[in-house]
Amino acid sequence: MAKDFTTRAVDFSKWYNELVIKADLAQNSDVRGCMVIKPYGYSIWESMQGVLDRMFKETGHSNAYFPLLIPKSYLSKEADHVDGFAKECAVVTHYRLKNNEEGDGVIVDPEAKLDEELIIRPTSETIIWNTYRGWIQSHRDLPILINQWANVMRWEMRTRIFLRTSEFLWQEGHTAHATKEEAVFETKQMLDVYADFAENYMAVPVIKGVKTENERFPGALDTYCIEALMQDGKALQAGTSHFLGQKFSETFDVKFADKDGQLKYVWATSWGVSTRLMGALIMSHSDDEGLVVPPRLAPIQVVIIPIYKGEDQLGELTDKLSPVIRALREKGIRVKFDNRDNQRPGFKFAQYEFQGVPIRLALGKRDLENGNIEVARRDEKTKEVIPFDSVVSHVEHLLEEIQMNLFQRAKAFRDDHITEVNSYDEFKATIKNKGGFVSAHWDGTTATELRIKEETAATIRCIPIENPEEVGQCILTGKPSKQRVLFAKAY
Amino acid sequence: MAKDFTTRAVDFSKWYNELVIKADLAQNSDVRGCMVIKPYGYSIWESMQGVLDRMFKETGHSNAYFPLLIPKSYLSKEADHVDGFAKECAVVTHYRLKNNEEGDGVIVDPEAKLDEELIIRPTSETIIWNTYRGWIQSHRDLPILINQWANVMRWEMRTRIFLRTSEFLWQEGHTAHATKEEAVFETKQMLDVYADFAENYMAVPVIKGVKTENERFPGALDTYCIEALMQDGKALQAGTSHFLGQKFSETFDVKFADKDGQLKYVWATSWGVSTRLMGALIMSHSDDEGLVVPPRLAPIQVVIIPIYKGEDQLGELTDKLSPVIRALREKGIRVKFDNRDNQRPGFKFAQYEFQGVPIRLALGKRDLENGNIEVARRDEKTKEVIPFDSVVSHVEHLLEEIQMNLFQRAKAFRDDHITEVNSYDEFKATIKNKGGFVSAHWDGTTATELRIKEETAATIRCIPIENPEEVGQCILTGKPSKQRVLFAKAY
Repeated sequence: MAKDFTTRAVDFSKWYNELVIKADLAQNSDVRGCMVIKPYGYSIWESMQGVLDRMFKETGHSNAYFPLLIPKSYLSKEADHVDGFAKECAVVTHYRLKNNEEGDGVIVDPEAKLDEELIIRPTSETIIWNTYRGWIQSHRDLPILINQWANVMRWEMRTRIFLRTSEFLWQEGHTAHATKEEAVFETKQMLDVYADFAENYMAVPVIKGVKTENERFPGALDTYCIEALMQDGKALQAGTSHFLGQKFSETFDVKFADKDGQLKYVWATSWGVSTRLMGALIMSHSDDEGLVVPPRLAPIQVVIIPIYKGEDQLGELTDKLSPVIRALREKGIRVKFDNRDNQRPGFKFAQYEFQGVPIRLALGKRDLENGNIEVARRDEKTKEVIPFDSVVSHVEHLLEEIQMNLFQRAKAFRDDHITEVNSYDEFKATIKNKGGFVSAHWDGTTATELRIKEETAATIRCIPIENPEEVGQCILTGKPSKQRVLFAKAY
Repeated sequence: MAKDFTTRAVDFSKWYNELVIKADLAQNSDVRGCMVIKPYGYSIWESMQGVLDRMFKETGHSNAYFPLLIPKSYLSKEADHVDGFAKECAVVTHYRLKNNEEGDGVIVDPEAKLDEELIIRPTSETIIWNTYRGWIQSHRDLPILINQWANVMRWEMRTRIFLRTSEFLWQEGHTAHATKEEAVFETKQMLDVYADFAENYMAVPVIKGVKTENERFPGALDTYCIEALMQDGKALQAGTSHFLGQKFSETFDVKFADKDGQLKYVWATSWGVSTRLMGALIMSHSDDEGLVVPPRLAPIQVVIIPIYKGEDQLGELTDKLSPVIRALREKGIRVKFDNRDNQRPGFKFAQYEFQGVPIRLALGKRDLENGNIEVARRDEKTKEVIPFDSVVSHVEHLLEEIQMNLFQRAKAFRDDHITEVNSYDEFKATIKNKGGFVSAHWDGTTATELRIKEETAATIRCIPIENPEEVGQCILTGKPSKQRVLFAKAY
């Protein structure tokens, strides 16, 4: 299966595109920039959703659902917000088709024109805050802690499967609070949830930080983010949490009577992660043999392949393996027993390897006689023969070990690719030759940020939250700076 | 809370609308026909999704995701299909907004007109079968058993929250098979899954049947359905499963090489249920005190309310109740302990009663001294005092009893409202005065069906699957008939 598969070293971008297709994760559709997420890819997304949904509920959030379509006038109400999204909006203008009287097929019925155009949501702040106005009168109605799992649409000119698609799936949290402190706490709490998820489930190390003004979410006072590093040295923004201040409550006139009897504007946050995380997962761990999925998110954690000739041998192997399958499942381990007789073991080995199943067990007649079983781990591509009777506990521990190993491996790579530089020449050479994050002093102006971007294609990924104060000089302008920020080329 | 609440007898339709709002299930949005599903309503929908998703996976299906937008030309390809959906399509014509140079706000950018208009999916057969063409070459690629959880849009002129909305949430299964027999088996299997779900989880008795040609899904050869009866005597179609034959595979040219080497068209099914089920749930069980939710779908199955004065008493009651809460949760029972001190017990009682929580436990100081606890059941609005020590097993059994009672109650009502008639006068009188299902002979023609509909507003809900053959005469035309069919006024 790994034949005709481009290696990372030859062409990372081609490797990625081929992997997505060959591992049966997703494909482009005929609709520009919109993808089809195939069952195997979707099952990984379902694993992600399951964990995140539990985390959101454990931090007190409930799910709800708001309309797909947003009146154009809502979007226009908040100036920064509309500036950020107007250029990529899919617009519904009509609500009916009719038979084409002068030819084949159907045409848009010109008589079914909407009075006001509707926008397919690029994000839901406007329609949600317009709704919250009716829900909030008193401090007793606060906080509102809501999340929505939904599809959104941003008409992107250059699309890339999972990473930048016109339609994508995501969750968007939208919360309302009585005080600024509570809203800031919520913003940071959800950033921590995202970092926890990225590191402990996706096995992707992330840096928590704050975006510069230039990179902020349109309408936010502060955008917090987690930034990951891909194997090609490019950074990827994996999740954002926005402190929206009172911008949307002012725009949509959402006030509450506080305990002191005063009418005050509500404080807001929003936060989201999307199917883009699938791209982050792939580009963090996978290799020239295909996808690598961390055990905690793997739809199949262990595949068991019997190696047999004829039904009798299969029966014998199945009898031996059944209690193991049962015991693993009782421990909550997701096991697939692949006894298909229309495919050879070699084909199955290649398939599961390419699809990144963490552990493969294989049992043949000789293993049976010797009381052994073969265990192969996907992350290191090693295999060993172990006593059959120890297989359950071995697998249980190995899954944890693989999870940890993937994280440590990705973290070592990431740490190795944070380079401190103190001059613009050094900066440019590092961005060009080594890649990764470059830690450098910056004078704090958007003008400098944009010039560096123009000259090097590197952007400021974030100002890390746990950043030591350090006196220095901006690499471009030489102006004074109080801390380093992280630059990188990014997805 | 039940104050200012219309009773069912006074105005069923008004009762329904008020209940949806007052129980915090959903509300209409400013976007015509699109609803906001509020957290409590959405949590019931999540319960439904959880059960159905498990059932789909147990019958071998996987989830996937296909694009929201469908090129207009795809929709036009299958003649019946486009006839069925063209009149209610939301159409995307542009992909960008721009600042209004002659005024405020933003306008649609005329230069960003799409070459081909895109339709927001009213259902996904066309885009999915266009995709399946690339997935199916050989009989080894079959069957494909896929489900999608998604939002869809049908521009309805008269909308009703949950029952008929322009945007709704649903699941749509789309399967591909090598033989007609397999596809028919799948169609019926999924109908059985829906009936199982309706009866054993929603506690809503349903009749399984086949639609007449006139009521078929646009593009289907046979539409199977489950039909339920609401408390006002109107029927509600709660789920449909379609045998699509080879229509979509022919339209989208999806062929496979069979074992005999011949190229053949693939056989198809599709099946779906939607947020309409929320309406069915409400109108089956709820009463003049508000919502009634069957225990197996209730987000909160048991609410526990301590009745106390001051923190000391609350502490004492909490100490006593904590082990009970733990024990119930260990049995997988969903418990809410409501110790809010800014609301009085009476307010809480009214709230949970209105929201249909199956069991309410209340514990006060006197109960504590007597070793008792008060148990109230929502379905029958009765309460009793039981020994505190028996509360866990009592609750466990009572949840089952309530589940069964709701089903039996709904079934008795439904069975009471299936009336056999043998003349058109009897038919008209029954439809007008009693309502419910009317079982009558019909000559099998669409003309007769439509005339009866025009004259009485009753439609043929289905030809029941388990229908005895019986020689008779059509109530309208007197022509010979071999079996009775079920008529009703319907949602």
